[in-house]
Amino acid sequence: MPQYPSCPLCDKLHGLQELPDEELVWQFPHSVALLGPWQYHTGYCILVSRVHAVELHHLPPSVRRGYLEEMCLLAQAIDVCFQPRKMNYEALGNQVAHLHWHLFPRRHDDPDALKAVWLGFERAEEDRALKERLQTGPISRTAITARLRACIKNGDRTFEIH
Amino acid sequence: MPQYPSCPLCDKLHGLQELPDEELVWQFPHSVALLGPWQYHTGYCILVSRVHAVELHHLPPSVRRGYLEEMCLLAQAIDVCFQPRKMNYEALGNQVAHLHWHLFPRRHDDPDALKAVWLGFERAEEDRALKERLQTGPISRTAITARLRACIKNGDRTFEIH
Repeated sequence: MPQYPSCPLCDKLHGLQELPDEELVWQFPHSVALLGPWQYHTGYCILVSRVHAVELHHLPPSVRRGYLEEMCLLAQAIDVCFQPRKMNYEALGNQVAHLHWHLFPRRHDDPDALKAVWLGFERAEEDRALKERLQTGPISRTAITARLRACIKNGDRTFEIH
Repeated sequence: MPQYPSCPLCDKLHGLQELPDEELVWQFPHSVALLGPWQYHTGYCILVSRVHAVELHHLPPSVRRGYLEEMCLLAQAIDVCFQPRKMNYEALGNQVAHLHWHLFPRRHDDPDALKAVWLGFERAEEDRALKERLQTGPISRTAITARLRACIKNGDRTFEIH
């Protein structure tokens, strides 16, 4: 049973085995990393807390710290794999109030690099070609996930949070 | 001397004594909380890392953990003071690549509550009335800062990160 049956992210965590293989990037102790839809921002992941909570300070301290460490670990893996211009971290929850971090690696060649990603996504709602461009990475979703997994798996050898 | 003389946030940290009193909300060990300009989102703060670093994983682990604890502490203080519908956490750095968290408390009566704040700010660039509305809170900036300071100061008695 999902923790909160009416929560779309609880539902998703409960049905991980039904996800396309490339969507489930990594299972951490306190969170699950999913490959996001907007792979123009190549490596974009959503890191979902395993515990249903609305705000970070609702988590027990050890869980919160663990979750934030996993956020940093995943961000560094994305950074190592795709060498973005800048990582963008966002925990909003305005539509789905179950803790999740959006980790958007911003490309060096993004014409909107100085702005938040949401402006482009809003425009994409009315522009099918833009939507397709923003959902498509330079390599396949499967290849993106494979790179991220290899980097996280070999984390202690290939990179360290230092 | 600022750590990086060409960095606007290093400059700001170096000149804290020159800021208007109500802008300097709190000085934490690893960060400084500044009252942001968009006080329609009442209690909106920017939490600037004292150390100049571009990405979280560039900070030494103990500094990073301390900075993230301060982020949670400040978010909880904003939550206690202004009881938003949802807290939005964002670390972007697309324009100023010195670590800083935007903490936006989202109002219950915000007609754009389901969307990221940046869409409204973008529209405000072309709409002076909207800009003024989004920069103005229901109480003065001085009163907002006073509430936040009281809450952080009495943190161990009035709230706990639990």
